[in-house]
Amino acid sequence: MISNIDHIAIAVHDLDQALERFKALTGATEEQIRLDEVPAEKVRVAFIRIGNSKIELMEPLDPTSPVARFLEKRGEGLHHIALETKDLDAEIARTAKEKLLPLSEPSEGAGNKKIVFFNPKDTGRVLVEFVQKNQE
Amino acid sequence: MISNIDHIAIAVHDLDQALERFKALTGATEEQIRLDEVPAEKVRVAFIRIGNSKIELMEPLDPTSPVARFLEKRGEGLHHIALETKDLDAEIARTAKEKLLPLSEPSEGAGNKKIVFFNPKDTGRVLVEFVQKNQE
Repeated sequence: MISNIDHIAIAVHDLDQALERFKALTGATEEQIRLDEVPAEKVRVAFIRIGNSKIELMEPLDPTSPVARFLEKRGEGLHHIALETKDLDAEIARTAKEKLLPLSEPSEGAGNKKIVFFNPKDTGRVLVEFVQKNQE
Repeated sequence: MISNIDHIAIAVHDLDQALERFKALTGATEEQIRLDEVPAEKVRVAFIRIGNSKIELMEPLDPTSPVARFLEKRGEGLHHIALETKDLDAEIARTAKEKLLPLSEPSEGAGNKKIVFFNPKDTGRVLVEFVQKNQE
């Protein structure tokens, strides 16, 4: 089952500047913030922990990043939402029965998590990610 | 302080159709779903509870709704995020020190909550709502 909204991701041109704005907005302390890079997506990211969820700010590392293309086409703004499950394979099997298929096989996302994305055409033009955290 | 992501809101043309898609995607049961209308925003909405957060689907009730204008300009998709606080006035005072001012005075949102919105120009082109739930 889907148990939680893991994160909301926002595409930005300048990660440092956006992080300052969102720290000001949320009042987040350094303990709530984690910086990372996701080579597969060619982005560097900042996660701001808010309760059980996170706001993810994403800056492209080079112009071939999917996030760079998003910024070029639509500008800064909300990019995707990620829903958490303890059993990604079971969720993929469940949604397949509803004719909702992931865009690709599960891959590794930020923080060593197993993720898939669904086609926004199937989900009201919203890019949705399913994420399964590894056992700690 | 900001304690939780209260909800993620998505603008849609057809609420019933979108709700079916998101039920299929999330596996949400009827117990997780609540329908409502927000006369101030001229929208009807569906909330899908996911853990401590919700996905809100919003359909405009008439063409003068701000959501109708959003759909006309940008099409369906992610519309805003709402951050929860127990003390809205304190958060407004805190963000004012960071030169982040709400677009208007606090008003009443869906479910009898006290809400404000911030200018997306100040927050990476993301419309952010602060929400304070009334004492039950």
